[in-house]
Amino acid sequence: MKIRVGIYGYGNLGKGVECAIMNNDDLELKAVFSRREPEQIKLLSKNVPVYKTEEAISMEKDIDVMILCGGSATDLPKQTPMIAKYFNVVDSFDTHAKIPEHLNTVHNRALIGNKTAIISVGWDPGMFSLNRIYSMAVLPNGETYTFWGKGVSQGHSDAIRRIQGVLDAKQYTIPKQEALDSVRSGANPEFSTRQKHLRECFVVAAEDADLEKIKNEIETMPNYFSDYDTIVNFISQDELNKNHSGIPHGGLVIRTGKSGEKLENNHRIEYSLALDSNPEFTAGVLVAYARAAVRMNRSGKKGGYTPFDVAPIDLIKENRSDAIINYL
Amino acid sequence: MKIRVGIYGYGNLGKGVECAIMNNDDLELKAVFSRREPEQIKLLSKNVPVYKTEEAISMEKDIDVMILCGGSATDLPKQTPMIAKYFNVVDSFDTHAKIPEHLNTVHNRALIGNKTAIISVGWDPGMFSLNRIYSMAVLPNGETYTFWGKGVSQGHSDAIRRIQGVLDAKQYTIPKQEALDSVRSGANPEFSTRQKHLRECFVVAAEDADLEKIKNEIETMPNYFSDYDTIVNFISQDELNKNHSGIPHGGLVIRTGKSGEKLENNHRIEYSLALDSNPEFTAGVLVAYARAAVRMNRSGKKGGYTPFDVAPIDLIKENRSDAIINYL
Repeated sequence: MKIRVGIYGYGNLGKGVECAIMNNDDLELKAVFSRREPEQIKLLSKNVPVYKTEEAISMEKDIDVMILCGGSATDLPKQTPMIAKYFNVVDSFDTHAKIPEHLNTVHNRALIGNKTAIISVGWDPGMFSLNRIYSMAVLPNGETYTFWGKGVSQGHSDAIRRIQGVLDAKQYTIPKQEALDSVRSGANPEFSTRQKHLRECFVVAAEDADLEKIKNEIETMPNYFSDYDTIVNFISQDELNKNHSGIPHGGLVIRTGKSGEKLENNHRIEYSLALDSNPEFTAGVLVAYARAAVRMNRSGKKGGYTPFDVAPIDLIKENRSDAIINYL
Repeated sequence: MKIRVGIYGYGNLGKGVECAIMNNDDLELKAVFSRREPEQIKLLSKNVPVYKTEEAISMEKDIDVMILCGGSATDLPKQTPMIAKYFNVVDSFDTHAKIPEHLNTVHNRALIGNKTAIISVGWDPGMFSLNRIYSMAVLPNGETYTFWGKGVSQGHSDAIRRIQGVLDAKQYTIPKQEALDSVRSGANPEFSTRQKHLRECFVVAAEDADLEKIKNEIETMPNYFSDYDTIVNFISQDELNKNHSGIPHGGLVIRTGKSGEKLENNHRIEYSLALDSNPEFTAGVLVAYARAAVRMNRSGKKGGYTPFDVAPIDLIKENRSDAIINYL
């Protein structure tokens, strides 16, 4: 019998989860829940109902795991604890400083309902976190560096769009090659914000706009750009649509460290992601952990967890013997 | 109280484990066991006793986990099951085809003694296996490639040394750049053995040796070299000692895959290791899993496991709250 999955929130991430379920034949999309009116929503999947979020709880018996696809700022802090009492859940909560609090709240709610919840699932937090903990574990004498990009930052793109005279914009975060080279050399560098990443912006300006003024406003914008080397390119809307319509992302986790009696041997562990679609890749991770949440619940592991608590074997559809033969 | 570790077998790997324990302050080396006479062995650690392997069983109460450092061909198939009845154990068994059988034997023996055993710990099998299973789990629609090197193959070096007229030799396995480029492009290539890796040999020949004959014997050696492009360099013993005395290794696990309604988006996951010392890095992995074996045993997980069964949180010395803050 397939694992019956619900999607709670149907934006980019929710659509990505829908696609990911199609690529996992042990999973079945049972229903989508949205704050919008169901008749406004057209799914990619055939014969899957859309309901208002308020109706979710009534489907406790029909859904094995709910994948929460809302945002970390305001949606997930409320939705995950609420839903975790009724369903096994997975979310991609990524407000780093608030993870312990969120985990604690979700844990207690899940325990009330005898459910299993896995939070902070995605690529960072998520796959990058796993690489940080594994590489720390096996190479304790060293230093870990995380780089993001090349990829689109939605928040920074939005910030540019709010500038007067800007019609549209896309911002890429890019790791600096010198910084990567220095880390890979094993030099254990310390970086300022400016030294690690640069920001490249593609901006569509209104016909009568003052380009120098826009450029200056971007470059000096506090929190967003003032601490970075920023490249501003003005392009046409056509060009933006043609060359910058995707939401690619990625990055690297690099750990260098030493071993030996006198720490005379150097080692480097490097993990990198190059993703055409940030939400679709995140969705792939969510779906694998949704499978794990159901399995953990069935084997008695109730409450709140993070990817650190999940054994890799629970993430795949194959049984353990096949996994050993195919991947070990 | 520190975790009390025993080392069973004191070759390159055993010495590496000894060094790794020094780099993990929650672990303590309690004793080393060897088939050699204890008085012949000089440890790097002070005040740690060396015993004959036969004495190990008498120390059941003094050691929390035994790290088995013998070879996979003949040592571990006997030693791990034997020891697993008396101690929590970790080994680096790497004869891939025999892993299911080894796991089964070790599992049954560990259960008799209420112990926990984790087998096939290292970097391949080990860290590479983890990356194969994780990347398969999150990107099911794709292809995984494993490359080894640049690194020293001990078996191939030995094979060259057995050729008449060869005084010493070192062989490096090297991934082919064209193969890496093709995989990274997302082309999902199929490779012959020759297309994936090349083999470079550094050979010290006797003064009167026939170099052409040696070169030919290497290049045509079945199983070892005949299926590969092989480069043979003749050098002096001095040069070999100076430039090729280390045992570096490494490699890459790359998965490319697709997502989206029409599989229109491409993703690449890449994990790579560049290691100055193969045995010392392997030792670092063994030591982390030794910690996990003790924790799993204390929490009631008895029997035989592989790295696939171990949650990452059990590998590090920090508690869960700190791990979440520091690595998630």
